[in-house]
Amino acid sequence: MEATILTIGDELLIGQVIDTNSAWLASQLNEIGITVKTRFSVGDNNDEIRDAIFYATEQSSVVITTGGLGPTSDDKTSEVLCNVFDSELVENQEVLEHIAGFFAQRNLPLTDVNKRQALVPDRAKVLFNHLGTAPGLYFEDASAHIFVLPGVPFEMKDIFTREVLPILKSFTGSGKLIHQNMVVSGIGESFLSDMIQPWEQNLPEDVSLAYLPSPGLIRLRLSAFTKSEKAGRGKLQLLFDALRPLIKDYFVSDRDEKLSETLLRELLEARKTISTAESCTGGYIAHQLTSIPGSSGAFWGSVIAYSNDVKTNMLRVNEDTLSKFGAVSAETVKEMAENARSLLKTDFSIAVSGIAGPDGGSDEKPVGLVYIAVASAKETTVEEFHFGDFRETNIARSGVAAMNMCIKALRKGRK
Amino acid sequence: MEATILTIGDELLIGQVIDTNSAWLASQLNEIGITVKTRFSVGDNNDEIRDAIFYATEQSSVVITTGGLGPTSDDKTSEVLCNVFDSELVENQEVLEHIAGFFAQRNLPLTDVNKRQALVPDRAKVLFNHLGTAPGLYFEDASAHIFVLPGVPFEMKDIFTREVLPILKSFTGSGKLIHQNMVVSGIGESFLSDMIQPWEQNLPEDVSLAYLPSPGLIRLRLSAFTKSEKAGRGKLQLLFDALRPLIKDYFVSDRDEKLSETLLRELLEARKTISTAESCTGGYIAHQLTSIPGSSGAFWGSVIAYSNDVKTNMLRVNEDTLSKFGAVSAETVKEMAENARSLLKTDFSIAVSGIAGPDGGSDEKPVGLVYIAVASAKETTVEEFHFGDFRETNIARSGVAAMNMCIKALRKGRK
Repeated sequence: MEATILTIGDELLIGQVIDTNSAWLASQLNEIGITVKTRFSVGDNNDEIRDAIFYATEQSSVVITTGGLGPTSDDKTSEVLCNVFDSELVENQEVLEHIAGFFAQRNLPLTDVNKRQALVPDRAKVLFNHLGTAPGLYFEDASAHIFVLPGVPFEMKDIFTREVLPILKSFTGSGKLIHQNMVVSGIGESFLSDMIQPWEQNLPEDVSLAYLPSPGLIRLRLSAFTKSEKAGRGKLQLLFDALRPLIKDYFVSDRDEKLSETLLRELLEARKTISTAESCTGGYIAHQLTSIPGSSGAFWGSVIAYSNDVKTNMLRVNEDTLSKFGAVSAETVKEMAENARSLLKTDFSIAVSGIAGPDGGSDEKPVGLVYIAVASAKETTVEEFHFGDFRETNIARSGVAAMNMCIKALRKGRK
Repeated sequence: MEATILTIGDELLIGQVIDTNSAWLASQLNEIGITVKTRFSVGDNNDEIRDAIFYATEQSSVVITTGGLGPTSDDKTSEVLCNVFDSELVENQEVLEHIAGFFAQRNLPLTDVNKRQALVPDRAKVLFNHLGTAPGLYFEDASAHIFVLPGVPFEMKDIFTREVLPILKSFTGSGKLIHQNMVVSGIGESFLSDMIQPWEQNLPEDVSLAYLPSPGLIRLRLSAFTKSEKAGRGKLQLLFDALRPLIKDYFVSDRDEKLSETLLRELLEARKTISTAESCTGGYIAHQLTSIPGSSGAFWGSVIAYSNDVKTNMLRVNEDTLSKFGAVSAETVKEMAENARSLLKTDFSIAVSGIAGPDGGSDEKPVGLVYIAVASAKETTVEEFHFGDFRETNIARSGVAAMNMCIKALRKGRK
């Protein structure tokens, strides 16, 4: 069974908004064995939306659209749907009551614009929106199942999970596409490819491999179609077990998780706590860790020491160290990590100082130079990195390198 | 002139990667007056890629593809391009030398896998890749201009800017699509729509309006096609000038910038400095501010006080305040903001404490309850917010509300 995802909205075509709905929907569909054949975006234009819906229903038997269902005049999907599916807009009593309740609960008046959202095409089944006012719609026609969802991510996700998923599950048989991931760090894509070539060439025909690089990391993904999830996962695990000795020290994790999730999980398992002292990453590492539910079990806090004053005042970095070696130096990050560890009373502390760019570089200390230290009860490790010219990537790569160093220190301590 | 953006890679269809390239390319194309008609994604499958390229060239006269050009076996675009454009792969001497230099400079050996990247279809013009090894390609055929770029964002952006943009600019005439934005905060989409209806109904025919909501904010965007950019911008500005009195206190900014950029810009203009004391936002606000180049001119640092221990140790919050009112209270954030301001020696300080969820809520203090304080030399303002059930959105909305409060405090101080 194949699906097409269609996201609707001018904002997607002028680059003002990044389409995260598609990725989320794709991963949900994959989970239940529905392959996404294509995904595409069109603007808020009646003809374009109509053509797109026709094209999508030709492409695959499941079509999911998001967006264009809002209360304002630039949202045109309902109108087009009536045209495509030969429907008329009728007021849906249940939706109207929900909308009235929604506004009453918030002590807000019910406006005509909002009432209009209770008008739904008569040929559609309503997919109830518990978190907002625009209902989702489900059309069945000769060739396809079309699910029309609002564009607001949390409303879309809720309707998909409650309403769409059970319907789709009733279509799909027992087959399922499964993926298994291995995260590798510290090696470039082409070298990794050379290193694992003998293993890659011997992969079974029905297993596919993908290299998914991101700043500082490569995710290797094995995929296979399987009738029995357990057997399929066992098979992929055996393949990864065979790979692991080939990549030795570059291995980070064989779970489908972010690097920050690996670090947090291993900290919680070892009942250890962590703090950070961040200069050039400016809170990025703390934010990565605290984005994870339950992070308060291991993450105590941070000092973001952007100015030298904060480095001396709050982190008690020695003024002599700063004047002799500079803020971006092995000596300074070492003190930052050790002082953060004792001041914030944690088992581990990560410190980062570098030149993120675009300004602030010199011949001696160019943009992209970053020092990272990890302090534990046993020892403090310091490493020097040379990243690139781009602020955003330098911050991201510093975060990856720092979390990776901390994972290594943590594993070393547990041996 | 219309363009189609095609992004290639299995990872885009299984939801492992969010497609940011499309949005960036769309905004670049819009800038020079090229409208993006559709954008779509297909997997690493020869037939799908071929069909997609045919479909794209039928849709519009400019086609830009990204991805599928890497050195590894799952990257299949070159092969397909040879097939579509009746080409053969030939070794390009200049590219080979660049690749050899690239690896020599990094003291890395040149492998066969890497050398293979110097093979390019003989009918293509090479678009040189200064930052990586996979070159971009440019094909011209009877109906369309096809630009084939690598998927790694910083490489793609560099090639587009250096090589593709000058070619596209030579096609486009003097017409240009311009956009102007106004950021509004503190009001829901449907109420805003009601409030500005009289203004919206009187917009000229050739000007379109879009509502672009994100957590805590709505961006209103006016768009118009114009021959003279200056005259066009003047026209849109007049329309926004007429809108401003209607939305009064909800107005945040009429520039095309993020809220963090508005705050940083106004701090720099006023020569004021800022620090943050973050509990539930966990470094998100610091990260938003330090992502902006030049932020070190106004941002001094932060204390991320996730545990109560860090709140008392590092931020000197009174233990009595914590035990009497709790960490999530108006009293605690007030102390956090005032102490951060004096400890980090800044003009302004933002403090946030709340329950981001999914755990940690109670009847008295449910998930979504957030207190925010902004301290200045003059006064400390504290507000209580009730956001929703989602951790990610609660963190984002807290950040928006906090930065918005600080912008207001800053403007009040300047009056």
